[in-house]
Amino acid sequence: MDIRDILTRYKEGEMEMAEAERLLRLDFIERIMDHTVFDHAREARKGIPEVIFGGAKSPAMVAEIVRAAMETKEILLVSRATPEHYQAVHNLVNSDHIRWEEKARMIVVDRRNEVERVGRVGILTAGTSDIGVAEEARIVAEAMGCEVLTTYDVGVAGLHRFLDPLVEMLRSGVDAIIVAAGMEGALPTVVSSLSDVPVIGVPVSSGYGHGGLGETALMSMLQTCSPGLAVVNIDNGVGAGAFAALISRRCNRK
Amino acid sequence: MDIRDILTRYKEGEMEMAEAERLLRLDFIERIMDHTVFDHAREARKGIPEVIFGGAKSPAMVAEIVRAAMETKEILLVSRATPEHYQAVHNLVNSDHIRWEEKARMIVVDRRNEVERVGRVGILTAGTSDIGVAEEARIVAEAMGCEVLTTYDVGVAGLHRFLDPLVEMLRSGVDAIIVAAGMEGALPTVVSSLSDVPVIGVPVSSGYGHGGLGETALMSMLQTCSPGLAVVNIDNGVGAGAFAALISRRCNRK
Amino acid sequence: MDIRDILTRYKEGEMEMAEAERLLRLDFIERIMDHTVFDHAREARKGIPEVIFGGAKSPAMVAEIVRAAMETKEILLVSRATPEHYQAVHNLVNSDHIRWEEKARMIVVDRRNEVERVGRVGILTAGTSDIGVAEEARIVAEAMGCEVLTTYDVGVAGLHRFLDPLVEMLRSGVDAIIVAAGMEGALPTVVSSLSDVPVIGVPVSSGYGHGGLGETALMSMLQTCSPGLAVVNIDNGVGAGAFAALISRRCNRK
Amino acid sequence: MDIRDILTRYKEGEMEMAEAERLLRLDFIERIMDHTVFDHAREARKGIPEVIFGGAKSPAMVAEIVRAAMETKEILLVSRATPEHYQAVHNLVNSDHIRWEEKARMIVVDRRNEVERVGRVGILTAGTSDIGVAEEARIVAEAMGCEVLTTYDVGVAGLHRFLDPLVEMLRSGVDAIIVAAGMEGALPTVVSSLSDVPVIGVPVSSGYGHGGLGETALMSMLQTCSPGLAVVNIDNGVGAGAFAALISRRCNRK
Amino acid sequence: MDIRDILTRYKEGEMEMAEAERLLRLDFIERIMDHTVFDHAREARKGIPEVIFGGAKSPAMVAEIVRAAMETKEILLVSRATPEHYQAVHNLVNSDHIRWEEKARMIVVDRRNEVERVGRVGILTAGTSDIGVAEEARIVAEAMGCEVLTTYDVGVAGLHRFLDPLVEMLRSGVDAIIVAAGMEGALPTVVSSLSDVPVIGVPVSSGYGHGGLGETALMSMLQTCSPGLAVVNIDNGVGAGAFAALISRRCNRK
Amino acid sequence: MDIRDILTRYKEGEMEMAEAERLLRLDFIERIMDHTVFDHAREARKGIPEVIFGGAKSPAMVAEIVRAAMETKEILLVSRATPEHYQAVHNLVNSDHIRWEEKARMIVVDRRNEVERVGRVGILTAGTSDIGVAEEARIVAEAMGCEVLTTYDVGVAGLHRFLDPLVEMLRSGVDAIIVAAGMEGALPTVVSSLSDVPVIGVPVSSGYGHGGLGETALMSMLQTCSPGLAVVNIDNGVGAGAFAALISRRCNRK
Amino acid sequence: MDIRDILTRYKEGEMEMAEAERLLRLDFIERIMDHTVFDHAREARKGIPEVIFGGAKSPAMVAEIVRAAMETKEILLVSRATPEHYQAVHNLVNSDHIRWEEKARMIVVDRRNEVERVGRVGILTAGTSDIGVAEEARIVAEAMGCEVLTTYDVGVAGLHRFLDPLVEMLRSGVDAIIVAAGMEGALPTVVSSLSDVPVIGVPVSSGYGHGGLGETALMSMLQTCSPGLAVVNIDNGVGAGAFAALISRRCNRK
Amino acid sequence: MDIRDILTRYKEGEMEMAEAERLLRLDFIERIMDHTVFDHAREARKGIPEVIFGGAKSPAMVAEIVRAAMETKEILLVSRATPEHYQAVHNLVNSDHIRWEEKARMIVVDRRNEVERVGRVGILTAGTSDIGVAEEARIVAEAMGCEVLTTYDVGVAGLHRFLDPLVEMLRSGVDAIIVAAGMEGALPTVVSSLSDVPVIGVPVSSGYGHGGLGETALMSMLQTCSPGLAVVNIDNGVGAGAFAALISRRCNRK
Repeated sequence: MDIRDILTRYKEGEMEMAEAERLLRLDFIERIMDHTVFDHAREARKGIPEVIFGGAKSPAMVAEIVRAAMETKEILLVSRATPEHYQAVHNLVNSDHIRWEEKARMIVVDRRNEVERVGRVGILTAGTSDIGVAEEARIVAEAMGCEVLTTYDVGVAGLHRFLDPLVEMLRSGVDAIIVAAGMEGALPTVVSSLSDVPVIGVPVSSGYGHGGLGETALMSMLQTCSPGLAVVNIDNGVGAGAFAALISRRCNRK
Repeated sequence: MDIRDILTRYKEGEMEMAEAERLLRLDFIERIMDHTVFDHAREARKGIPEVIFGGAKSPAMVAEIVRAAMETKEILLVSRATPEHYQAVHNLVNSDHIRWEEKARMIVVDRRNEVERVGRVGILTAGTSDIGVAEEARIVAEAMGCEVLTTYDVGVAGLHRFLDPLVEMLRSGVDAIIVAAGMEGALPTVVSSLSDVPVIGVPVSSGYGHGGLGETALMSMLQTCSPGLAVVNIDNGVGAGAFAALISRRCNRK
Repeated sequence: MDIRDILTRYKEGEMEMAEAERLLRLDFIERIMDHTVFDHAREARKGIPEVIFGGAKSPAMVAEIVRAAMETKEILLVSRATPEHYQAVHNLVNSDHIRWEEKARMIVVDRRNEVERVGRVGILTAGTSDIGVAEEARIVAEAMGCEVLTTYDVGVAGLHRFLDPLVEMLRSGVDAIIVAAGMEGALPTVVSSLSDVPVIGVPVSSGYGHGGLGETALMSMLQTCSPGLAVVNIDNGVGAGAFAALISRRCNRK
Repeated sequence: MDIRDILTRYKEGEMEMAEAERLLRLDFIERIMDHTVFDHAREARKGIPEVIFGGAKSPAMVAEIVRAAMETKEILLVSRATPEHYQAVHNLVNSDHIRWEEKARMIVVDRRNEVERVGRVGILTAGTSDIGVAEEARIVAEAMGCEVLTTYDVGVAGLHRFLDPLVEMLRSGVDAIIVAAGMEGALPTVVSSLSDVPVIGVPVSSGYGHGGLGETALMSMLQTCSPGLAVVNIDNGVGAGAFAALISRRCNRK
Repeated sequence: MDIRDILTRYKEGEMEMAEAERLLRLDFIERIMDHTVFDHAREARKGIPEVIFGGAKSPAMVAEIVRAAMETKEILLVSRATPEHYQAVHNLVNSDHIRWEEKARMIVVDRRNEVERVGRVGILTAGTSDIGVAEEARIVAEAMGCEVLTTYDVGVAGLHRFLDPLVEMLRSGVDAIIVAAGMEGALPTVVSSLSDVPVIGVPVSSGYGHGGLGETALMSMLQTCSPGLAVVNIDNGVGAGAFAALISRRCNRK
Repeated sequence: MDIRDILTRYKEGEMEMAEAERLLRLDFIERIMDHTVFDHAREARKGIPEVIFGGAKSPAMVAEIVRAAMETKEILLVSRATPEHYQAVHNLVNSDHIRWEEKARMIVVDRRNEVERVGRVGILTAGTSDIGVAEEARIVAEAMGCEVLTTYDVGVAGLHRFLDPLVEMLRSGVDAIIVAAGMEGALPTVVSSLSDVPVIGVPVSSGYGHGGLGETALMSMLQTCSPGLAVVNIDNGVGAGAFAALISRRCNRK
Repeated sequence: MDIRDILTRYKEGEMEMAEAERLLRLDFIERIMDHTVFDHAREARKGIPEVIFGGAKSPAMVAEIVRAAMETKEILLVSRATPEHYQAVHNLVNSDHIRWEEKARMIVVDRRNEVERVGRVGILTAGTSDIGVAEEARIVAEAMGCEVLTTYDVGVAGLHRFLDPLVEMLRSGVDAIIVAAGMEGALPTVVSSLSDVPVIGVPVSSGYGHGGLGETALMSMLQTCSPGLAVVNIDNGVGAGAFAALISRRCNRK
Repeated sequence: MDIRDILTRYKEGEMEMAEAERLLRLDFIERIMDHTVFDHAREARKGIPEVIFGGAKSPAMVAEIVRAAMETKEILLVSRATPEHYQAVHNLVNSDHIRWEEKARMIVVDRRNEVERVGRVGILTAGTSDIGVAEEARIVAEAMGCEVLTTYDVGVAGLHRFLDPLVEMLRSGVDAIIVAAGMEGALPTVVSSLSDVPVIGVPVSSGYGHGGLGETALMSMLQTCSPGLAVVNIDNGVGAGAFAALISRRCNRK
């Protein structure tokens, strides 16, 4: 029963003013908020996947959460998942609609028939240790309808190796570039200084010793001398992918 | 002398192969890089203001840097400036082209005749302590051609007060929203969870005690449970403004 | 125009459904929230003083904020104030209604005729360095209508000196005890282990060297082996006073 | 032999002064302290459960501690327990008097016939990761005689989902609300800003990357801009439950 | 009125049992504790100087504290004092009994006629920056009756320069050696590895950059591979002096 | 060949000056240092046990180190040992001379016929988690010839429970007291404030959350307001035992 | 096709100017950079081994990386390797060209016939825990053609034991000395103060408690009072070996 | 009286064996050590300047230290000096032998007639904030006899600007390159990856917010993925200069 229903029934005498008021007030607060303020965001947000953090949750618990989420969501992801999580979830879903992304350690449940492609996002990473986080970002951005260009195989030869793929990405019209980097985390700054699109840095928890586990990479990206670079938390590929996709969707809205 | 000149003169015999090779190699390395790889970014970057960090630099040193920068730049900003910095710089510039932004503590030197407006950016801040950083962001975004909507006067009444200005911003079509926040830094997460555009969080070095000076705000924004939020360093209004403007320019390119 | 007015006018045909809906939706969202959800808290919160953080704000800025706040508030406090802040604020208020609390560095503006006393709160501190923070707590708790018992003069003789004042406080029926402590911050744990009322620890930024500036005291209170102790931030006398007063008001509500 | 006995026997000549003095002095110091200063707290504290930290202790060691504690205590809890701990303890207690709380990982030994209910406490948590800590708090508060209202199932939809259960809690007359939160830890501040009862924040060691493991949540709660919020250590559900119950018992004492 | 008085008067009928009990209980708790448990320590502690932390306290406040302390103390020290503090305190004391120790920044008030010398303590420091802290230790140890051997002038030539003074100290029979050191703080470990008496390390807040301000020195001393070294807080010359003197007094008690 | 031998042979013409000089110089540097400077310490140090850190070393490696050390040492200890370490070492030693200390996780190899008892040391600990560290200290102090009084069973009832054992220790003439404490680490400060002998605090890596793993206990002991307390590193029972024994040996030297 | 080819073919009319320009520009950028700027370093760098970080990578992944790297490299190392890694890699390489370095946990693949020895490097370490890191450095330096002198067996007797091996190293003409040290990390400073060659400190992640895991050692080396000491990250034996070898190769270039 | 004198006089009967032994032992320990072990380093170290840390020392104290040092040193430097320090020192030295280096904030006292040039060192820095630290390094390296090539004016245009000066440095035959960098500190890694000589990174305490004051730059350099880079402490230009000069002197020794 929405506001119009209440107003109609009230006017037609089917409802007392006190009742109408009660419904419009507290009991309906959430619905009103949803339908008013949040309508704006909601519509735009359509297609943002629900992301469930697998982590230390038991397969049974993850399966239970997935089951509940599937009642309202067409697409949902489980991050930091294990093969055991996948086993537990697999039976709940038509096998056409579920897949296991090994490198990203993600379960993807997608029951949409077809996803309209909007915009293009680039993802760069220097080392092999950063690929998992980069893949997490790719899957989220693709789930949000973006085409994703990735270059993970920059190799260990030196910083100059990323120039070609970067130029190619820029030429192909990406709206944002995600750069995942561990250790000293210099790559996002270099990419940002050469690009005209926003760059999102994702520190990766590689490295050891002082400043290891991504802290140095995070600091480097925050201390960057290049405007045009913003950061998400260490290993937060999900956040980077969603952020980049938001930009790209915005840039390609009709 | 660009590549074509060298090739022409070499073909016409005005230049030996060794000399042509030499010119094409090391001595020209920077020029080649500039004209090739970086042309792409350069053109797009046109209009990004040079930002000089005033900080502890002496007025004389700032004036010298400004003088040098003015030879190649039409627009440049001095951040973390003092009135003394402004005095020292003022004489170097036609007074129509310079102004002092007190709240942002910025000197703006802008010799462009007219700046094409591209895109729209929103800036929100809860407390009065955050206004300086927010203003820094505004000036950078405006210098990059964006229209900026600001709401600093949310007051101390509670989190729900920002709803109206936020909805208004979203309706007016901002492409990105900057949220500056100190202390516990919760506002960017809330804004992001209600918006369909990318949100850039700027932690502000207010607060005292454990986690003061912006560290809590930074952490909160990194730990956010809302995808769609990325962060720049504490007090880095310049970075936030440039990042938001890059998004907005991208979304409004022709 | 409240919900009833809208409903009335709509039923009587003075208002179209679209208009009624519009008013009930976005434009009224804050009013509805205020009058519905927040009525509950609002009434209860009556009498909680507005606290303005003076800190590095200029006297003029503080005066401006005070002037604005006085339009809606009967009682308001300025914390971390200076005599200069007091000078700037003094002229705005009838001198019967303003006073300068030197030890707490607080300006108290109180235009209420009479404050009903509800409940009793104790405040203990071991060293002379903790008195400022303790006084901040006292003023806030008194502003909220509590009677406050303080014992700051425990002296330097040893931990056992606080036993008498503590027993006296407990006998006099305090509903909560605030203990401000710097350096190793052991006192709150000891007090809590001897008391049957909740104890609020306030770490104080005294101490030097490793763990100085209140960090050790904060950690000690968090690591306490005594249930019955909760903590506010370093030097946050305001928070401690308000928290204790909330307890005491609750315990003495009618 | 208490003080009166000593005085009596001394007066009646059954005891020399030296002996009386000796007994009253050192050898009796603890008894005197116990019977004098601490009588006050002791009586009030009656019913506070002994909580044994299981953690890395072996099942045998925990069983031994429980056996010893059961000589003087009617109720005792083992926190951070494992099923192995439970096995080891189970045999020591009549099975009517012991139970295993799985989510809280707690063993509850309660040999009281009936516990008088005093007061009401609310517990809120946003995510599923926070439930263990919240359950720990619930069990402690219930052991102390409080009725506990919990809402763990706020879901992942957004901050506004907690409004209804919060209002319901406030209406049902809770004397204190515990809010367990990990990651950015914003919920306790929001709850506190909407409530007129004291709120106890429990940071939860979820989250990863910079500020993970509860540090961000702790800092957020300490940096809160809302008076009326105090904090216990990360994951310290026991402390939060005891603190809230102390408030509620105080508010409902006869 | 001590315990014997009470017992006597009670036996002689001058006091009711209730009154005797009351006196023996709460009201006398501190006196009983003092006269019983603490007699032991008290006698031994005779001669430990009261040390007042000057720091940021105003000269007037320090003077007030000194005036109060002089009622019960024959010797007292003000640490971290300024010449202004000295001016304020000077008038309160017969000039024979007060002196200003510039390098230690200490005011020494000593009204004892003569101090019995007990034991010998050594103090070593490598750099000139450590002398202030070393002097603080010397003054406290001397006030406690110890003879103090100091070697501050080890010079900058290298670690081996301290060998001669160290051997001399050991031969002269010091019971403990204090070593003050900043920067990398290696000296205490070396001294300890060469000595058969306990060594007390005092980290000094010199050094800059990563680990500056004494943190590295503190860590080095805690991580020492030499048993026989214990540590006090950074810059805590007072604690080191008192600790060393306690050892020396113990070793030379009759 | 010592210095006298060289001198004799040189004088008697059996050695050239160049050879004598060579021997006295570099090649003999260590011997000279040993026999000269370090003789002093060496003699006094006789009886200090060699302590081998077992930790992650393999049983074979530990056995090898023990075998080598036994060539020159009569007593040696292996700390942080496992039963596997003990197995590996056991065969190397006459079974009368080796034992396994389970609580301390130490292997003790002692081939001395009889150890002269010198001095007395006390060890106090509040919780059961601190016993391992305390035992480590006990074994080292006993190996150095001290009699050790321990009180581990203070229980969980409150701070006042340690008064009796403390007074007893002081009366029995301990020369130093070791206090092992985790969590908030308040006990060493309290003991020190009541004692006239030096107190050595050992932080224990218990506790969880902010400041857990011994950091709070370490900080508390460093920030102590009681002179007479020095500290060793977290869990460093070996260092505490050796330090206390050095004091006690010094106080009881002939 | 290098620059000369392009120029030749262009001049001879086999190529249009546009094509020549295109080739010289973007598509050739990397080749040009390589052949120009980087030729310089490349030649000199010949012989620097590729080092693959084994760590948590699966044996299969390491084998795959090794297989790829062997296409272009004659020598390559796998650090932080396990026997499982070695098994997986072993089959790919002629067994004459591969070996397992157990202490360094390194796989060495070296297919060069003979390596010219250039220069000499010393490696010192005090404790047995530092040997693994030291061995890592040795293998890298040897792979780069240096002769390496190591002294790991300094023993636990005290700092003076390293004097002999140090003097011997200096006399044998090492160009640089690597000192690996954990815990308080004092050895590199002492070595540096006695040496006339550059000393490279490698902090080792031994030690426990406050500043454990190499942090203290790192800080000590950074805070050193001895010029002539530089540092690499904790446990970074690879970096230390490569750095020392670079020095030594430079000092012995022809 | 050196060893030979002693031996001679002893053989000739002018000295008893006991006296000879005594002289050779303790009293001579330092002399023996100096003349034996340390001769080696001493000779090589000739010309290393004494560096006095000015910092917070008073001009009078600095002058006193300089006066004393001049008795044995021909060259000495005062770092972190002020013009006031220079005034105080100026009068002590012939004005031909002293100069004030403003950018480095150093006083240089050099009384050598002529310094032999040995080797060549390069210094690079990106920003104007790094020049002071770079100059400190230059002065120390020059005082040690090296020719120094500096490029401070890389500008703010981007990372690629340093390529030309770097290549020039490498071609001119520098033996080591110092790179001073603040903020994210990426430059040393890039330089190292392009160079065949050792690179010494000096983090500079610029930058603000999280990881400011040089901490990020330090971490970046420690986490570098490029072997061939070692680090000194934040702002330690002196250490970097001395380290680079040691390398260069070694590489150019005769």
